Amino acid sequence: MVPYNAPIADMRFVLKDLGLLGQVQQLHGGEEITPDLVEAVLEEAGKLARDVLAPINHAGDRQHSRLENGVVRTPDGYAEAYRAYVEGGWNSVPFEADYGGQDLPWTIATAVQEMWQSANLAFGLCPILNQGAVEALQAHGSEAQKQLYLPRMISGEWTGTMNLTEPQAGSDLSQVKTRAERREDHYRIRGQKIYITYGEHDLAENIVHLVLARCDDAPEGVKGISLFIVPKFLPDETGAPGQRNDVRCVSLERKLGINGSPTCVMAYGDDEGAVGYLVGEENRGLEYMFTMMNNARLAVGVQGLAAVERAYQQARDYARERRQGRAIDGTYPAAIIRHADIRRMLMTMRAYSEAMRALILDAMLMQDTARRHPEESYRLYAKRRVGVLTPVVKGWCTDMAVELTSMGVQVHGGMGYIEETGAAQHFRDSRILPIYEGTNGIQANDLVGRKLIRDGGEAIGEYIDELHALINGLNERGGEDMAIIRRQLALAVDHLDNATGHLLEHGAENPDAAHGAAAYYMRLFGLTAGGAMMARAAIVAQDKLDGGGEEIDRGFYEAKLATALFYAENILPLSAGLVTPIARGPASLRAIPDEAL
Amino acid sequence: MVPYNAPIADMRFVLKDLGLLGQVQQLHGGEEITPDLVEAVLEEAGKLARDVLAPINHAGDRQHSRLENGVVRTPDGYAEAYRAYVEGGWNSVPFEADYGGQDLPWTIATAVQEMWQSANLAFGLCPILNQGAVEALQAHGSEAQKQLYLPRMISGEWTGTMNLTEPQAGSDLSQVKTRAERREDHYRIRGQKIYITYGEHDLAENIVHLVLARCDDAPEGVKGISLFIVPKFLPDETGAPGQRNDVRCVSLERKLGINGSPTCVMAYGDDEGAVGYLVGEENRGLEYMFTMMNNARLAVGVQGLAAVERAYQQARDYARERRQGRAIDGTYPAAIIRHADIRRMLMTMRAYSEAMRALILDAMLMQDTARRHPEESYRLYAKRRVGVLTPVVKGWCTDMAVELTSMGVQVHGGMGYIEETGAAQHFRDSRILPIYEGTNGIQANDLVGRKLIRDGGEAIGEYIDELHALINGLNERGGEDMAIIRRQLALAVDHLDNATGHLLEHGAENPDAAHGAAAYYMRLFGLTAGGAMMARAAIVAQDKLDGGGEEIDRGFYEAKLATALFYAENILPLSAGLVTPIARGPASLRAIPDEAL
Repeated sequence: MVPYNAPIADMRFVLKDLGLLGQVQQLHGGEEITPDLVEAVLEEAGKLARDVLAPINHAGDRQHSRLENGVVRTPDGYAEAYRAYVEGGWNSVPFEADYGGQDLPWTIATAVQEMWQSANLAFGLCPILNQGAVEALQAHGSEAQKQLYLPRMISGEWTGTMNLTEPQAGSDLSQVKTRAERREDHYRIRGQKIYITYGEHDLAENIVHLVLARCDDAPEGVKGISLFIVPKFLPDETGAPGQRNDVRCVSLERKLGINGSPTCVMAYGDDEGAVGYLVGEENRGLEYMFTMMNNARLAVGVQGLAAVERAYQQARDYARERRQGRAIDGTYPAAIIRHADIRRMLMTMRAYSEAMRALILDAMLMQDTARRHPEESYRLYAKRRVGVLTPVVKGWCTDMAVELTSMGVQVHGGMGYIEETGAAQHFRDSRILPIYEGTNGIQANDLVGRKLIRDGGEAIGEYIDELHALINGLNERGGEDMAIIRRQLALAVDHLDNATGHLLEHGAENPDAAHGAAAYYMRLFGLTAGGAMMARAAIVAQDKLDGGGEEIDRGFYEAKLATALFYAENILPLSAGLVTPIARGPASLRAIPDEAL
Repeated sequence: MVPYNAPIADMRFVLKDLGLLGQVQQLHGGEEITPDLVEAVLEEAGKLARDVLAPINHAGDRQHSRLENGVVRTPDGYAEAYRAYVEGGWNSVPFEADYGGQDLPWTIATAVQEMWQSANLAFGLCPILNQGAVEALQAHGSEAQKQLYLPRMISGEWTGTMNLTEPQAGSDLSQVKTRAERREDHYRIRGQKIYITYGEHDLAENIVHLVLARCDDAPEGVKGISLFIVPKFLPDETGAPGQRNDVRCVSLERKLGINGSPTCVMAYGDDEGAVGYLVGEENRGLEYMFTMMNNARLAVGVQGLAAVERAYQQARDYARERRQGRAIDGTYPAAIIRHADIRRMLMTMRAYSEAMRALILDAMLMQDTARRHPEESYRLYAKRRVGVLTPVVKGWCTDMAVELTSMGVQVHGGMGYIEETGAAQHFRDSRILPIYEGTNGIQANDLVGRKLIRDGGEAIGEYIDELHALINGLNERGGEDMAIIRRQLALAVDHLDNATGHLLEHGAENPDAAHGAAAYYMRLFGLTAGGAMMARAAIVAQDKLDGGGEEIDRGFYEAKLATALFYAENILPLSAGLVTPIARGPASLRAIPDEAL
């Protein structure tokens, strides 16, 4: 079993030292979010993640979820773990108190979410999907629907799913063919959905499917798609699971990873038609889906961070134990953590994970601010910022998750390739992250097309202005380390600024080139934004170290400063390599005809 | 079944148009290597790869090699495929004619090798390991040993293995514990070896293990390791497989990929001791191993290229078929190959694979030149160049194989994550490549420590001088495309030049920093060297297009020029991002104590 220990010290640093918690406390309801509460939540969640979810991660990968006579059996221990998770109240953490939620800010809930995902990504998918379903119903369900479904989905008694994809409709939902036929107080749904995560399982007594389908007389394309609630068991008059609905899991996909989670092919209406209840109005389904999709995208970014953190811990632990070759100081045989190249890989993983964590929690603070700040101007500001950061968090953190879990394998040498070691699982698991909830190509296009060009550069310009202000602040700081961090950040921000200007200037007239540059731009944005968070972290760490006086963990702040420095000299400079690909790369993109590629 | 078609047009381009074949013909024995011969070899090999090896690749991955009652059964179709491969004479292609080899130059044999590896990486490992064993015996075996073993291993009647690794001795062979006890005309070998590729199988009637072991009175460390021949069946007086030797496969590893190939734990001497025959002299085993390791490293680089080529073909074919969303020209639904970001990924895969192919075949030409050039000064020059390019080919091509097969998965979207599609297999298979035959960390250290610093920069300086000459040649060429290629190559070469100077200046006094920078330097070297080959390709393509007159495939040369341009503007600029990490990155490498990482 590969141990996992939640990085509570770093979460505490981001929440408290970086001032996020202080800002949360200024929000509506925020006064209740005391440091003691946060501490208790992180500690308790860390225990569940470490003691219950992490120990079944590797075995679940080996065992897979299995379909047996129409029933999906999750791996050994999943049902017990889910019970412990629900009984601990963890499923209700971020949801509205009106329906039994604990109403904790996303800033805090996301730190907890990272733990579930690090401990067990396949298990953690179930709550993520449920979260999306809850949000869609919170925002668009009728009061009766909310009363009936939300308390059970928030407690975790029932789970929710999202049914979007069909074989011909993946990234392009306008091609959805599933039909909905109007009846008196319900609809009859017929069609097939694929890639339905936890579409069927044995963790909870009922499953609430949210399904995109098309009414017979609906307009073509995305404007004819409606959203339906299709429960596995129709609730009876008491709200208890009653009659079995005409929906079933017909097969499970054999996947590269996240094997513990069932990825279902779902058949709706093979017999009399599945009973579905319309959410909101007809033909507005896609719009409703997008309500929750942004949060789901952020959650997938969290999975990226979580995979990196887990892979880092495992690689570091292995590198401490494994002895090969002579260290630079002559020790023989030396733990491989002493070798420069192994250390480079470990520091790289560490630096990215710290930068991602700070970036993600800061984005979640904006999410909370957009919803709960007393002043509208702040809410609007935060909303703009969330819009910009969502594709960056999803795209950058998950692209890096693949690269960095790969590095985790590499640290293990030959052992990394043996499945028993567990390093390869993180690599396989994380490969889905750049794909689902909108491929990273779609994230990059969203960033460049919608969040930059269509916005006229307003929100991103505002963000870059803040980066310049941060750099100015760094100017006033003493010390060689801070000078290096300032210099490297300034260079990266210049690159980002120039690339932004280039895309704004040429993007509207040449959208194809803008799309061709989008992936590079997303990477440039991510690594600069991460670098900015590390610079903020360095400032705080230096202040703590210089402050003396109070009892502080000097080792932690020294390590934070060192990691920020490493990020500045190893990761931020990669920005220089992206300038030309953004400006010039797409020029030759279509020079070869399709048939000659 | 996922089809594979050998990229014969591009191989032909590199061999003929880039002038490699002309140079081969100047070598000893080269006059026989006519264009017609090369054409016939490529065509026939392409058929075997396409019709026999590729069709069993995916099924073999699913089925795995299995250990049943001490016998290893390879996947269905492997034995028949191996028979066809041997009967076609393919196993003997690069080996000395004295022992039945066909004595084809490595330049040609490597193009063929790429096909086996693209078609079926797990299958192709068997010939690669055998090749290493043949080379070790060719170089260091006694005449009697050569007479007995080489004809059978060259024909493919028997296969060879390399037994280096033990649980405590992976990258660090000084820790080898397997013992050899002297008897009259043989030794008795006792110990355990791990990660023995094709250590046991049902493809051939005998297996010749080359085993590193330590005599009882041998000195400690690497200077006490000897090399032994340990046949599975001891040859009888006629040379036929006789008595079963005391060596067996005790288990197979469950791996991330290359599942068709058995990776064996081998037990030597559980009973009376395995009979082994000393190769060369005692205590010189490691030196003998290194003889063949360089070629094996190049072969693994070829596997990297092969994986990328295969993944490219599959992703491109999928992107032509899959329809999602609206194309830039309004087509709806459009094949995703029309979308800019998909195209960026495909062009990236294509550009790398063409650059790698040219780089590898050029390195193999140097290999041939080092062995067969009539003039010693050329042989020495070529030997220096092979020394420099070996870690680059191994390290860069395999690092990129992981990144680019990952891109191949991404092009497939959700389908890429489903094992049935086959895209994920390339991603899993290729993850071993940066690990075996010397991890890429070891390659990078070899490049920086041995090939640069210990060499005083001579061989690499000579190479960089040639790059400058190439750039000067580009100066005289007209056209905007060539100007762009020249400019980007010149920038990259400047970066390489500066990084080289930095490492030469500081590397000796601070080897730790040099090792910490080595991975970045290897990447910088690889992408620049690849860019140089693409620039050479562009020159030739332009000449062909300008030449008119003769009947040429204009589409091919236009595509080559476009790909070179894409490489120049999308890949070469990444060099700018590596300058600071090389010069400054390692500074913070050890700032955090081991226990605080």
